[in-house]
Amino acid sequence: MRLARTVAEARGALAALPRPLGLVPTMGALHEGHVALVRAARESCAAVAASLFVNPTQFGAGEDFARYPRDEARDLALFEVAGVDVVFAPSAAEMYAADASTTVHVGGPVAETLEGADRPGHFDGVATVVTKLFTIVAPDVAFFGQKDAQQLALIRRLVRDLDLPAEVAAVPTVREPDGLAMSSRNAYLTPEQRAVAPDLYRALLAGRAAAGEPGALPKDVIAATAMSLVMPDPRLITEGDRIAEMKREGSPVPPRFDLDYIAVVDADTFVQEAELGSRSLLVAAARLGVTRLIDNLELTPIRASIRSMSRNASQSQAADRSHSSSQSHTPSQSPSAHHSPSAYPVGDATGTKGR
Amino acid sequence: MRLARTVAEARGALAALPRPLGLVPTMGALHEGHVALVRAARESCAAVAASLFVNPTQFGAGEDFARYPRDEARDLALFEVAGVDVVFAPSAAEMYAADASTTVHVGGPVAETLEGADRPGHFDGVATVVTKLFTIVAPDVAFFGQKDAQQLALIRRLVRDLDLPAEVAAVPTVREPDGLAMSSRNAYLTPEQRAVAPDLYRALLAGRAAAGEPGALPKDVIAATAMSLVMPDPRLITEGDRIAEMKREGSPVPPRFDLDYIAVVDADTFVQEAELGSRSLLVAAARLGVTRLIDNLELTPIRASIRSMSRNASQSQAADRSHSSSQSHTPSQSPSAHHSPSAYPVGDATGTKGR
Repeated sequence: MRLARTVAEARGALAALPRPLGLVPTMGALHEGHVALVRAARESCAAVAASLFVNPTQFGAGEDFARYPRDEARDLALFEVAGVDVVFAPSAAEMYAADASTTVHVGGPVAETLEGADRPGHFDGVATVVTKLFTIVAPDVAFFGQKDAQQLALIRRLVRDLDLPAEVAAVPTVREPDGLAMSSRNAYLTPEQRAVAPDLYRALLAGRAAAGEPGALPKDVIAATAMSLVMPDPRLITEGDRIAEMKREGSPVPPRFDLDYIAVVDADTFVQEAELGSRSLLVAAARLGVTRLIDNLELTPIRASIRSMSRNASQSQAADRSHSSSQSHTPSQSPSAHHSPSAYPVGDATGTKGR
Repeated sequence: MRLARTVAEARGALAALPRPLGLVPTMGALHEGHVALVRAARESCAAVAASLFVNPTQFGAGEDFARYPRDEARDLALFEVAGVDVVFAPSAAEMYAADASTTVHVGGPVAETLEGADRPGHFDGVATVVTKLFTIVAPDVAFFGQKDAQQLALIRRLVRDLDLPAEVAAVPTVREPDGLAMSSRNAYLTPEQRAVAPDLYRALLAGRAAAGEPGALPKDVIAATAMSLVMPDPRLITEGDRIAEMKREGSPVPPRFDLDYIAVVDADTFVQEAELGSRSLLVAAARLGVTRLIDNLELTPIRASIRSMSRNASQSQAADRSHSSSQSHTPSQSPSAHHSPSAYPVGDATGTKGR
């Protein structure tokens, strides 16, 4: 494995590789999700490049750029074991001249809603650095995780609009045994937060189950997801009951999610949907303390795999990989149904949801 | 010569060409300036591609997109004679999907002053289409005319900032025998406007002559340029006298320039300069009726070639090509000199300048 610190070194090292060339862009702090990206690249490409760059321009003021986990030696070792041929790990000064003033901007809902609304400037930073990585590495295929679904849709749009000569491949989300989507930011979670973090995925599964009901609309899916998130334990009637019981038992009150959004969107455009369709995606973002978690599920599930989901589900990875199933869901439409787009609004908590 | 209408056809045709590959981007309506670009590409590259695309996104509302001169059959014939191997001439629909929403934006003075200020959105359109042409054609060198000096500086910045793997080569402005810089938009000029159009270049030469005086500052250069533009005939004391004389003679009053700007800038950054330097560029834009003309001169001239400039100069091309002379000009600096940037402001006409 060769390590390139500059654009010139990267181009030199990459020129010697066979084609097709796969690219796995990362910000380091590698986990099994990144390894799955490298594995997918190895399976379909003759050579694999990875980038390791904590891109400052995609972090907003007050976000976690300074404390983002960094352990380059460990990351390089993991890349080598995974079978990466060339790692491009530039400094910020190598990537951005002091007077750099060029930005790639993607407009429209794919960039402006949800993550784009919650993180101003984030997607301009992503679009710009991805364009640069594509022009530096010139991959035939670039691999991105389905976990960052809006980023994936934005990059697909960017690649199409700028005619970047590469394919974009999506790799299914890799989950912990309890269902939590793997993320470098999971390292921020306290043990107590880590224990409740999988509730976000369970809530998405509840939403997906609701999508399977006859006549279900996005608003029903969102409501089921929100209800599950605030009342993850079905044995208790209300979250207030749950907390009261814990206090009686002397248990500490568990950490609570602060919800940023729950929405049903078209997976390509990220336009919020009034009706469920073949590309419907259920997306959610919520914070546990200072840590922001995002996750998503396609709403074209195999029903059986959802119904059997338990609190300690171990088949979550398998369930995620079933998305491309041909058993697509076509809900019957009620003439009286609401057809306006809907999302669970930030701050509009249900009566039982604490903040 | 092969003609490609789609991105896929272009990539197919270009893959067969030897390297290095030169690219000459054009909006058609070809003239000798374009031929000089192709000639420069032929001299330094093994193969030459040209693009022919009147890019709608770089025209503002009220600009001349609809009436921009188009004669594809003539343009293709000229490209073939000039030695182009592949012409990429896409439709607007091929270049821009109906829901395209990605823009490349260059910020800073290079994009925001002068042309950027006068033509809002123009440079975003240029930056986006040039990025696309570079990713579609993948040239080793791309050739642009020095006449559009700010566009040239912006594209150099863009290519550097996005790591586009191509060199940018500047080709000297080609002029008519009377000094008018060649431009597709010259076709809009009436015979009367065409007769006075070379006054813009003469005014730049007057500014460059002023730059050769000891202690000259940008404001002196700008003043000399402005004076020349409003009083192009040195035999007359004032422009009022000139018009009065013409009326006495029964001549029609000649068309008048409406000045947009005259400025002295750093050729790379387009920051307006308080002192003359090795990269000083004198730039101007002015309108004759509905036709907007721009032109520029580097301020590192051979003095002799300026002093001999006459109203019907035939050595103007030779003078333009002398810019890279090593006889650079280093003005002595007066301690009392004004050091604030200066430009001839729009609308701040001298007493003798009509609008």
